[in-house]
Amino acid sequence: CPCPLPSGDTALSRLVRRLLSARRSLDLCLFCFSCPQLARAVQLLHRRGVRVRLVTDAQYMGLHGSQIGRLRHAGIQVRHDQHSGYMHHKFAIVDRRMLITGSLNWTTQAIQSNRENVLVLEDAEYVKAFQDEFERIWEEYNPANYSFFP
Amino acid sequence: CPCPLPSGDTALSRLVRRLLSARRSLDLCLFCFSCPQLARAVQLLHRRGVRVRLVTDAQYMGLHGSQIGRLRHAGIQVRHDQHSGYMHHKFAIVDRRMLITGSLNWTTQAIQSNRENVLVLEDAEYVKAFQDEFERIWEEYNPANYSFFP
Repeated sequence: CPCPLPSGDTALSRLVRRLLSARRSLDLCLFCFSCPQLARAVQLLHRRGVRVRLVTDAQYMGLHGSQIGRLRHAGIQVRHDQHSGYMHHKFAIVDRRMLITGSLNWTTQAIQSNRENVLVLEDAEYVKAFQDEFERIWEEYNPANYSFFP
Repeated sequence: CPCPLPSGDTALSRLVRRLLSARRSLDLCLFCFSCPQLARAVQLLHRRGVRVRLVTDAQYMGLHGSQIGRLRHAGIQVRHDQHSGYMHHKFAIVDRRMLITGSLNWTTQAIQSNRENVLVLEDAEYVKAFQDEFERIWEEYNPANYSFFP
């Protein structure tokens, strides 16, 4: 594989290790997703039987380098907005107990070149607020509600 | 003034109220800043004698609608990166005790049209990590280190 999982003690490898700790579920709410290493970690979890759900932005999911098509091809459920505004969140929730959020878009550019922050929170109050937002978006972006053919 | 401070119980008015609670210092680390209401709140704090420091991204600070020039004109200290990567943080620290961070860029587009999150944390451990990052960036972007004329 051209993109092995990162090793060592980089910010990316620490993020991947947090994701790979998932045993039951991984809920992803990501403005854009083009980092191959992170996509590989998500696919690995899916193959292990972890329930992966991914919400993303419609305008960014088709851009060059996007991993969304690859993840859908692997059988992962993806839903997207259909608004002109951006679905600009960038968070992950592991097993409904660990929130990973911040300024970081899941792109190679962001990981390699930008100044960014990633917060990891296990405080139930914060996790619940983001889990509730995820569930709202997941329902709102249900393909049954799409209206491309009004 | 064409942009009064927001009232009522909107997300923007709640954010403004948090900012206006500052008594001694406001440290801002913002990828882009074009929201006039937020700029007005920052100017008000500056006039009250709160020490405001602002770090921003060089490529975005000159874009149409940016409030950076206006804030500098008002006498607020602003520093920016000089890299090709983005200074992509979007956080504020009030009185070195309250961290406000998330996906939200301080733009009218983000506030009006996007799905975004803003976290408010007063846990000392998280505040310190972001305060330390702010101080690192503030020193790194000291104009004495600029090298436009190598």
